[in-house]
Amino acid sequence: MAGKFSDCDLTPIAGGGLLDRRLLLKSGVVFVAAASSPTCFAHAGTGDPQQDANWADPPWLHQTGGPFSGYGTPSKYEKYVVRNIGGNRAPAGDGVSWTPLEYLEGIVTPSGLHFERHHNGVPDIDPKQHRLVIHGRVRQALMFTVENLLRYPMRSQFLFIECGGNSNAGWHEEPIQRPVGSFHGLVSCSEWTGVPLSVLLDEAGVDPSASWVIAEGADANLLNVSLPLSKLMDDAIVALYQNGERLRPENGYPVRLVVPGWEGITNVKWLRRLHVTDQPAMTRNETAKYTELLPSGKARMFTFVMDAKSLITSPSPGQTLKGPNIYEIHGLAWSGRGKIAKVDVSADGGKSWAEALLDGPVMTRCFTRFRMPWKWNGEPAVLKSRATDETGYVQPERDVLIKERGRNGYFHYNAIASWAVDEDGEVRHVYS
Amino acid sequence: MAGKFSDCDLTPIAGGGLLDRRLLLKSGVVFVAAASSPTCFAHAGTGDPQQDANWADPPWLHQTGGPFSGYGTPSKYEKYVVRNIGGNRAPAGDGVSWTPLEYLEGIVTPSGLHFERHHNGVPDIDPKQHRLVIHGRVRQALMFTVENLLRYPMRSQFLFIECGGNSNAGWHEEPIQRPVGSFHGLVSCSEWTGVPLSVLLDEAGVDPSASWVIAEGADANLLNVSLPLSKLMDDAIVALYQNGERLRPENGYPVRLVVPGWEGITNVKWLRRLHVTDQPAMTRNETAKYTELLPSGKARMFTFVMDAKSLITSPSPGQTLKGPNIYEIHGLAWSGRGKIAKVDVSADGGKSWAEALLDGPVMTRCFTRFRMPWKWNGEPAVLKSRATDETGYVQPERDVLIKERGRNGYFHYNAIASWAVDEDGEVRHVYS
Repeated sequence: MAGKFSDCDLTPIAGGGLLDRRLLLKSGVVFVAAASSPTCFAHAGTGDPQQDANWADPPWLHQTGGPFSGYGTPSKYEKYVVRNIGGNRAPAGDGVSWTPLEYLEGIVTPSGLHFERHHNGVPDIDPKQHRLVIHGRVRQALMFTVENLLRYPMRSQFLFIECGGNSNAGWHEEPIQRPVGSFHGLVSCSEWTGVPLSVLLDEAGVDPSASWVIAEGADANLLNVSLPLSKLMDDAIVALYQNGERLRPENGYPVRLVVPGWEGITNVKWLRRLHVTDQPAMTRNETAKYTELLPSGKARMFTFVMDAKSLITSPSPGQTLKGPNIYEIHGLAWSGRGKIAKVDVSADGGKSWAEALLDGPVMTRCFTRFRMPWKWNGEPAVLKSRATDETGYVQPERDVLIKERGRNGYFHYNAIASWAVDEDGEVRHVYS
Repeated sequence: MAGKFSDCDLTPIAGGGLLDRRLLLKSGVVFVAAASSPTCFAHAGTGDPQQDANWADPPWLHQTGGPFSGYGTPSKYEKYVVRNIGGNRAPAGDGVSWTPLEYLEGIVTPSGLHFERHHNGVPDIDPKQHRLVIHGRVRQALMFTVENLLRYPMRSQFLFIECGGNSNAGWHEEPIQRPVGSFHGLVSCSEWTGVPLSVLLDEAGVDPSASWVIAEGADANLLNVSLPLSKLMDDAIVALYQNGERLRPENGYPVRLVVPGWEGITNVKWLRRLHVTDQPAMTRNETAKYTELLPSGKARMFTFVMDAKSLITSPSPGQTLKGPNIYEIHGLAWSGRGKIAKVDVSADGGKSWAEALLDGPVMTRCFTRFRMPWKWNGEPAVLKSRATDETGYVQPERDVLIKERGRNGYFHYNAIASWAVDEDGEVRHVYS
């Protein structure tokens, strides 16, 4: 019986073999149908423990295992799951490392795998010496120690942070062939906990004449950016914790500004200063960088919000499907404008689409994992995913994005990504 | 002006100085009131950057920082935040390590700090050699490799896991004096991702005569427990990922059974066998252990569900408040029966209560962080928290629990915990 694909009584609802997402919901009725043919989802064989050589005792059944540990680490068998350090290594400390999205599941990015973007390395900050100052157009300038900040009321929120330059290889003339994390992995998602910035600004007493805040980090780049006061009062967080514990050094220890849904660089790490003022500072990172020339000749600047985007992380480039079978297509969607409303998936290059299951909870400005069952018949296919957020914004096709933004694009690439699956099951990135 | 507590125009809503939880909601109006007196929440001082010696440049502003890393680790300044390895160290590999809840925020427990309970150490399992077998009263026995399992449709869920023996020091005659994590920290919360067990059981084809499943782990203890089939079909997960990445060795790598809301031991780590049968196996861990003699002389067994519970993690024993001020009381609540409906907090030893803010998202069988603003006037106080879940179950006072369960209790201690704050701000555990 093994290997008989036709055993499965599953009717596609869109081209290329996409199945109804309700197959993935926990429902005895539906799954009994799928499960009545055990080849629907591959398994190793019948395996009666008394008869099967594969059931021989492995050594760890007969020897006391390893000790307790103060702080655990991944299995040695998972050593390949690391950030991909790439891009500009000169000058030292200026570059990026990518989150290996192709190996991850769920919506939390482990803190050790959160992407990095540093302009002059990771400062080794002694929290006892670190200060955060709020000054400028305020009633009273304030200086906080980390200990002070830890005494304030806090709030937690699951939020993605995405570099404005993420996915910029999408602007290349030819589709780049890399694992999805090394192409799109300058985005990660954590539970951030800290003090609502509005509390601190209210305490300083913002002057009615103020409209911008210049946020500065304590790295040797003294990275700074200008941010509208209104956004900071609305939902910014002075974060002290990431995924339950204090921030990691490469993610801003001991204090990071988190600006929900806005491009990575606005989420200033090692935050040391908030200068309240009435105009942007026009710093390097909002003029020479993180800005783009449009076809009209005008420059696109202060493009804070990260638009809705989605990616299929499995199957994805570099992976190989092992023959016709039922697969779960899954991936991530997110939007800087709010919640993901739906994700559509296509297996025929965009000719037809079906709505994916969103694996809850669906939270604002947070990763959402989508899932779609797919019956691959072994013929070439092109997989795509398309996110729609709660504002009605729809992730664009690549040609639409390029028409709008021109060929000088580098930042904010959020076009629909296409993965081609060939007859051998090999997956590669295509423009289609 | 500094230190003038009376500057704050904040009216308590319950005894001991509890304030309205709405003060913690992001609301300009309310926070302007609190912030109009900057001593409401302690800070270091006025700090004009041009005038303050504390604003002198630290060394990290002037030297390139550290390199990118493949897999990050916490700051060296946070080295004290580790699991407390304790309890029985003989025989080797049998014991526990506690999650340091007093240092954590939000609801995710970092995987490196998830509590441990091992009976014979942490097996070093090669995932290529590991097998999971489902056999017994099924149409066809199945054997899965890890690779097979990774191809199945998955689902993610944020869930706490709590050892049935957590907080057992609560049964002691005298209140134990330890940090909250080393008393109550055999509970942690993660995003677990894996295959719904119902899918695999349906594929094996469970016989109508089956009602129990014996789950067995691949450690050298061959730990096994009996579980009702109905629960496993309802919501159990064969977990492969924890907080986005593959399971950690000490939490069951490569495969763990996750049984939402049920005592820790049922969440069998290193899962290798599910034997479908029609009666429990009456194993050591459900007879000699994880069972209790009641005052009536009857034994309480198969006490799977972890009842609703809450803990104030800050302030908590071992910490010291630095003088009268406004503090945020915060902590964790959870229930094995569903969502937390509310958490009440008392600052006068239970004479009066006020409802805490629940920091969202509130998810079923998951940690919920509660928060409550508190104006401490410097007099002795006794802090308590009391969880109510969506089924209406209310966390009991200690005397009520002991009356019901007697003096032979060891497992499932979930009474309201009381922290006394003395005039010097020192916090200790009391029975009251």
